[in-house]
Amino acid sequence: MTLPVLGLAEIAAVATPEVIFAAVEEALIAHAEARTSVPPPMVLEFPDHAGDCHVKAGHVAGSPHFAVKVASTFASVNNGLILVVDATTGVPAAVLADEGMLTAWRTAAAGALVTHAMTPPEIDEVAVLGTGEQALLQVTWLRKLRPINRVRVWGRRPEAAEALCQAFAKEGIDARPDALEGAPCVITTTAARAPLPAEAFRNAVHVTGIGTDMPGKHELPVELFAGAVVATDDHDQCLHHGDFGNAVRAGVIQPDADLAAGAVLRAATDLASGTVLRGDGDLAAGTGLRDGVPAWGRQVDGGSLRSTRSVADLTGIGAADAAVASAVMRWSGK
Amino acid sequence: MTLPVLGLAEIAAVATPEVIFAAVEEALIAHAEARTSVPPPMVLEFPDHAGDCHVKAGHVAGSPHFAVKVASTFASVNNGLILVVDATTGVPAAVLADEGMLTAWRTAAAGALVTHAMTPPEIDEVAVLGTGEQALLQVTWLRKLRPINRVRVWGRRPEAAEALCQAFAKEGIDARPDALEGAPCVITTTAARAPLPAEAFRNAVHVTGIGTDMPGKHELPVELFAGAVVATDDHDQCLHHGDFGNAVRAGVIQPDADLAAGAVLRAATDLASGTVLRGDGDLAAGTGLRDGVPAWGRQVDGGSLRSTRSVADLTGIGAADAAVASAVMRWSGK
Repeated sequence: MTLPVLGLAEIAAVATPEVIFAAVEEALIAHAEARTSVPPPMVLEFPDHAGDCHVKAGHVAGSPHFAVKVASTFASVNNGLILVVDATTGVPAAVLADEGMLTAWRTAAAGALVTHAMTPPEIDEVAVLGTGEQALLQVTWLRKLRPINRVRVWGRRPEAAEALCQAFAKEGIDARPDALEGAPCVITTTAARAPLPAEAFRNAVHVTGIGTDMPGKHELPVELFAGAVVATDDHDQCLHHGDFGNAVRAGVIQPDADLAAGAVLRAATDLASGTVLRGDGDLAAGTGLRDGVPAWGRQVDGGSLRSTRSVADLTGIGAADAAVASAVMRWSGK
Repeated sequence: MTLPVLGLAEIAAVATPEVIFAAVEEALIAHAEARTSVPPPMVLEFPDHAGDCHVKAGHVAGSPHFAVKVASTFASVNNGLILVVDATTGVPAAVLADEGMLTAWRTAAAGALVTHAMTPPEIDEVAVLGTGEQALLQVTWLRKLRPINRVRVWGRRPEAAEALCQAFAKEGIDARPDALEGAPCVITTTAARAPLPAEAFRNAVHVTGIGTDMPGKHELPVELFAGAVVATDDHDQCLHHGDFGNAVRAGVIQPDADLAAGAVLRAATDLASGTVLRGDGDLAAGTGLRDGVPAWGRQVDGGSLRSTRSVADLTGIGAADAAVASAVMRWSGK
């Protein structure tokens, strides 16, 4: 049996941001429309080595491959790979030995797509909480979709926040460690197990949380969800271990009050193309649109902000891994 | 990144029955003693291609590796591989591209070990229901542990049953397609979704079922569990989708009435070595032993059979995959 193993260099050569964005957008929309097969993920913990391992699997209907991803974090170092399997025969097709990079990129792409779709277009200032790999990626990938002229940073360790500001500076982005002063768009990327400082969210029109990937994690103050428009990448998963679930259990939001993130992306795309504005009732059904405009309604009055806040809870879906892996297979000619 | 991929020939050279038996026995006992980490498995279904894929993960405490296994069956053809990961760093160590053989062997070993431990030693006649790969393997691996002089076979398709009898004949085993006449030891290896013919079990002193690997499957008539000594390889899993769960939901057995299969193996080993007969209360605790003899009590009166029936429900545990994979790594010098 010859099983091709693609290394990081080979993968990076084809997995451009355009390829990743397209695959993740397709996966989120397909997932919202029940065209994916995604079993609940598995988690193994290795407390003696500050390690955990998340196994996710997924298939987007019609795709020639499905994927099983093994992603580990030991002592803050990410690693892993994606196994790609032929979805018509069950025969393993390739191992993508990406050392966890495809996960980092699909997480960045999902966050950027949803943050962009839900944040009013004139906003060019974001705050990012957390100082890890995703803190940098969430913003740099968002900047591929819209101008970002000012970044506010916060981390528990001031020296880590300072280092992140320098990393942003290298990318030509003005960043300062002042996220607790508040920003209109806030992105949380921590491994927090208790809510992050509330003052960081006081000016937030939109908040995207990407850190709650297993039970026990908690980034967003539950009060943020009160009266907010909420999008989740996977309803059951976010209810189970996302901050959406934390807010539901705290009684500040109903368990059926979330929109599917993919439906929001679909609506944003349709809105941009003018489809929704034609008032197509069928298209709008289930997408969070009311009367042909997004339920969160910001575009209604010419771009000025309403008081409504939106929150996206992204816990990571196996369908995105599958779509990204399938795209790598396609563009690498495998 | 260089990730070794071991092919079937390389794996088969080190994965002797002795190695597999030892690894599976260790895994079952460790699992019974809560020294394993085994998240609930994942299942993906591909009805358009008569396919499903089971992903299992596991770690035996203290082992240098953990394993994630991807096992698919499409149109009755098994395939798959096992990813072995360093349990101290999270770095992928190797891919065992075994085409599903290690799963077949660990399933055969688990079944044989438990069937042997729970079936009175003088019984040398077994019936096997089902005509697939496991029908042959369950018996041939059991014969590595005790003499088997007569095999009764049953399958829905008479020609498949006949072919299996011929396969047994090639192994020097007298087999005939008459399992519905009843045998003292019955092993079920089917993908049945409704109970198998009751007459096959009428003389059964011990029954081992290995076919219920996902919700909706059902091999054993629930009445078999009434008053029986029951062993499960994983309590929660067997309650969720094993025939033990089917019997519990039918009300014929209590949900806490099962012994751990590993505890039965441990007790059998200890019994053979005389340890248990010394009446060591601590050792006996939690192993299904009462007053220093197995709870199912057959050995009490010199080998003659009692009316008590025993049933083993084996749904397959990720810890066995991990132990087998770790053994292959060890003996192949990886």
